[in-house]
Amino acid sequence: MPTFTAPTKDQQFILHDLLRIAEQDVPGYEDLDREFTDAVLTEAGKLAMEVLHPLNSTGDKEGCHLENGVVRVPAGFKEAYDQMAEGGWMAMDMPEEYGGQGLPYIIHTAAMEPMVSANMAFNMYPGLSHGNMAAILAHGTEEQKQTYLPKMCSGEWSGTMNLTEPHCGTDLGLMRTKAVPQGDGTYKISGQKIWISAGEHEMSENIIHLVLAKIPGGPDGVKGISLFIVPKFLVNEDGSLGQRNSVSCGGLEEKMGIHGNSTCVINHDESIGYLIGEEHKGMRAMFVMMNEARLGVGLQGYAQGEIAYQNALGFAKDRIQGRAVTGAEAPEKAADPIIVHPDVRRNLLDQKSFVEGARALTYWGSSMLDRGHRLGDKDAEDMMSLLTPVIKGFLTDKGFETCVNAQQTLGGSGFTQEWGLEQFVRDARITMIYEGTNGVQSLDLVGRKLGLNGGKTVMAFFDMVKNFIKENEDHEELKKDFLEPLKAASKDLQAAGMYFMQEGMKNPNNALSGSYDFMHLFGHVALGLMWARMAKASYEALEAGASDTEFYNTKLATGRYYMARPLKMTGTHLARIQTGGGTVMALDAASF
Amino acid sequence: MPTFTAPTKDQQFILHDLLRIAEQDVPGYEDLDREFTDAVLTEAGKLAMEVLHPLNSTGDKEGCHLENGVVRVPAGFKEAYDQMAEGGWMAMDMPEEYGGQGLPYIIHTAAMEPMVSANMAFNMYPGLSHGNMAAILAHGTEEQKQTYLPKMCSGEWSGTMNLTEPHCGTDLGLMRTKAVPQGDGTYKISGQKIWISAGEHEMSENIIHLVLAKIPGGPDGVKGISLFIVPKFLVNEDGSLGQRNSVSCGGLEEKMGIHGNSTCVINHDESIGYLIGEEHKGMRAMFVMMNEARLGVGLQGYAQGEIAYQNALGFAKDRIQGRAVTGAEAPEKAADPIIVHPDVRRNLLDQKSFVEGARALTYWGSSMLDRGHRLGDKDAEDMMSLLTPVIKGFLTDKGFETCVNAQQTLGGSGFTQEWGLEQFVRDARITMIYEGTNGVQSLDLVGRKLGLNGGKTVMAFFDMVKNFIKENEDHEELKKDFLEPLKAASKDLQAAGMYFMQEGMKNPNNALSGSYDFMHLFGHVALGLMWARMAKASYEALEAGASDTEFYNTKLATGRYYMARPLKMTGTHLARIQTGGGTVMALDAASF
Repeated sequence: MPTFTAPTKDQQFILHDLLRIAEQDVPGYEDLDREFTDAVLTEAGKLAMEVLHPLNSTGDKEGCHLENGVVRVPAGFKEAYDQMAEGGWMAMDMPEEYGGQGLPYIIHTAAMEPMVSANMAFNMYPGLSHGNMAAILAHGTEEQKQTYLPKMCSGEWSGTMNLTEPHCGTDLGLMRTKAVPQGDGTYKISGQKIWISAGEHEMSENIIHLVLAKIPGGPDGVKGISLFIVPKFLVNEDGSLGQRNSVSCGGLEEKMGIHGNSTCVINHDESIGYLIGEEHKGMRAMFVMMNEARLGVGLQGYAQGEIAYQNALGFAKDRIQGRAVTGAEAPEKAADPIIVHPDVRRNLLDQKSFVEGARALTYWGSSMLDRGHRLGDKDAEDMMSLLTPVIKGFLTDKGFETCVNAQQTLGGSGFTQEWGLEQFVRDARITMIYEGTNGVQSLDLVGRKLGLNGGKTVMAFFDMVKNFIKENEDHEELKKDFLEPLKAASKDLQAAGMYFMQEGMKNPNNALSGSYDFMHLFGHVALGLMWARMAKASYEALEAGASDTEFYNTKLATGRYYMARPLKMTGTHLARIQTGGGTVMALDAASF
Repeated sequence: MPTFTAPTKDQQFILHDLLRIAEQDVPGYEDLDREFTDAVLTEAGKLAMEVLHPLNSTGDKEGCHLENGVVRVPAGFKEAYDQMAEGGWMAMDMPEEYGGQGLPYIIHTAAMEPMVSANMAFNMYPGLSHGNMAAILAHGTEEQKQTYLPKMCSGEWSGTMNLTEPHCGTDLGLMRTKAVPQGDGTYKISGQKIWISAGEHEMSENIIHLVLAKIPGGPDGVKGISLFIVPKFLVNEDGSLGQRNSVSCGGLEEKMGIHGNSTCVINHDESIGYLIGEEHKGMRAMFVMMNEARLGVGLQGYAQGEIAYQNALGFAKDRIQGRAVTGAEAPEKAADPIIVHPDVRRNLLDQKSFVEGARALTYWGSSMLDRGHRLGDKDAEDMMSLLTPVIKGFLTDKGFETCVNAQQTLGGSGFTQEWGLEQFVRDARITMIYEGTNGVQSLDLVGRKLGLNGGKTVMAFFDMVKNFIKENEDHEELKKDFLEPLKAASKDLQAAGMYFMQEGMKNPNNALSGSYDFMHLFGHVALGLMWARMAKASYEALEAGASDTEFYNTKLATGRYYMARPLKMTGTHLARIQTGGGTVMALDAASF
């Protein structure tokens, strides 16, 4: 059976040594001192380790079952859901007036991480509710907020997002679900939605669906899409539950993983809905929460990598097989633990250096979301907008790869259900697909985000890298091991951007053929920047006489590995990008 | 539901346009003309498409079940097994005197490919029998061959390999299973073997286990391992089945994939065994068949990639979503098929160019095995020995990646069981692990195979590449699109080899830390060589006035893609290798 230990110490390092959150000028951050965040993260970790983790494997095996329209979730999920609700974990960052705790988004992100590692399928239930609340908070009327948020913050009610239809996923303009105005301010929604995570279950008393649909007579395509609140039970004026709405679960998807989450076909048969935001402006409402949702999926990617790595590491220290090539390291045993073998270490360090870099990037991204929300810092918001497809696409691709690599560390045991690694692989796989496939992320990055503010946002990113290098190049060790590799990688990224500008003008296929490579190239540079910053923070801590020298020295060694090896991918990505669209577009579709 | 079409045309291209097998001086190849191989491959493809493929998904869902010591395989498997046996597919390449058809190994390999694509879990039953037969043929006495081979060639009996034990996989020196001589030429075998594929079932009347065990008093470690024949039912002198041997299935492994194959715990409780080959020389007997077995696993890797690609392609042509960036390509539809999008094409071309290159490499490898067996060509045997870890490690890593990429083409549908892609991913995953994990392959390549014949074999590979480039550089198009990229990639490979020689001397960890990158670097150069050769063959066919110009032009376009994009990985692999072992070995095991 797999084990899990919440990475509280590393989380604290990122929040305080790296990001120094308590010193930032963001309202609410002044309360986030080491003691406070340690208390929060320790409690979150406890819940993850003691309550959620034991349900991960059993939830996978049992799965969800549809019986007479009712979805049965795996044993123990309801109790865990209640415990999470009682602990106040559902809505840490929602405003206090609606029942939340008013904490910054970054601490919500950090608290959720161990829960996602421990049980991704379970955590999607509160995760979907959270996204739903964020949308209502941003676009709902005061009455809607008062009606829905407190009950969702407490966990009594939960939420979903209804976007996809059988014939339309990425291209929502093809949507068929209709919303017919009834003249009384309500709409009757009809259509079929699929792949609705947490779409139906009985852990909460009510389920608030947010549904994209078209009002007849509106504009064609995505410009005619509106967003509606469709509660499973209508809500009476006094807030009590009224009649059952005509929204129902038509089936459960059989999937590769996340079996503990109910992935539903949701049928709307003239269900009663309430417009949220403006008519035909549903996409805008959706997009505002996309940055947050996609950051959450990026987190899922590396969080699965974290638990997978932990179990690979445990195995590698425990399993004895063969001898170190430079002489026995455990002569008292029949063989050495496999962690002595260079290729086993190479694999473990790929995992470790990715996960720790990804955590830093995700928390940094969360801090930019806070700057946007709490300070109105437009530049931070734009930077996050630029980085969102990178965080979603790169961290989930690499997170999945990390799970696969961790599975490999276990050899044959990795393929068995008993050791649990194969579940992490199956669960992590979805993160590359949902909330926009990673191909779509790369398209968003190259087709839209590069040009944000006329290219000023991406230039700001390059400047950030350049300035960091410049400000720190007096530090010899930092320079050699971190700044020089970062500079080289960043040059590759800039050259790729330049290529897109020049050749993409001539033919957009020259840019779009390289979008996926560009997303990964960007991801590596972003992680390289994080590692360079973490190295600086580690040197500073050591120079300041920190007692836990092993922690900081390990951080430096892990970072040196990332800069020396994984980061080398930037050269290949650039070389591929610079071949343009010719070989990609050459074949007719029929000739493939 | 997934579909499958046997790739007969591409197989014929490789056998005849590329390898020109009928013109080779290998005994038996003179019969392998286009008509003959077409007939064989067409029939093999039919069996694969009509009989095996329909059982792939059902076999995965149903799995195997152990009931009172008896393993029940999925419905339809027994009938399919019988059909395969009746068709003479079990032992095409076994000598006619033992009931085979005496055909070269290459045609056996080609005939098996579509069956592996269609149903990998099923094909492991005959696959294990085949490996077993090869070992008995190479090392058994004439009596053993007469006793076991005819019944296995006919499929009446089947075979397994019993190697792994709970505490030893890679490091077989730790083996505990004992074989005690009884003084009458037999041995009593006691011990537990795990992960025994096709270990127990009732599709055949008898199961012939080949078991590694230690004779007490023999040398320590791998030098004291012997190989034994342990039949499930002892065989009477007249060839009829005698008493049940005390070998039994103690449990079935629950796995990530290949559910249709029974992966057994096999308990030997003083089971009666017969020595095969010499005492304490069991590893040698095992290793002789390793090249063949590992080539077979490499084939599994890309064969799963083939069926995954076919289904991704079908989806990409059919699914409409969004519009081509350069203007609608299917204006009559609500959207364009997604194959118009550059990133979808990039992904499909990664898949296609890998699978076709891998097929060429595998068949070429098979032809070298034939040269070894049938001509006694030591150089060909050594070349195959060098390439074996590359074929096993690179083709399975990339084969799995191809399945994951194909799954990605389908977006959300790829994650559902209904579309079948997720099964290909789960099934392909094992190929990176069994027959020696890919990490172990890379160790074999760098630690053993590079030094084969004092480095002459790897030099012969470099010469082969160099000579091919030299002989063909008058061809302008070939030179620009194929030879120049191949030359650059090959230079990277040679530089990596040089680094290992220089720095590995100082510290072996400098070489072994780069072994995995080296295996992939070698794989890319090998596939680059295959693509350059296929391009040459295609130009020749076109120049000779071949009627199917589309086939050859598509081949050229696919090859250009491989040379321009995937092959660019060699630069990153070299750069990583040249960082040596420093960052890999820096951390103490306790600090990870």
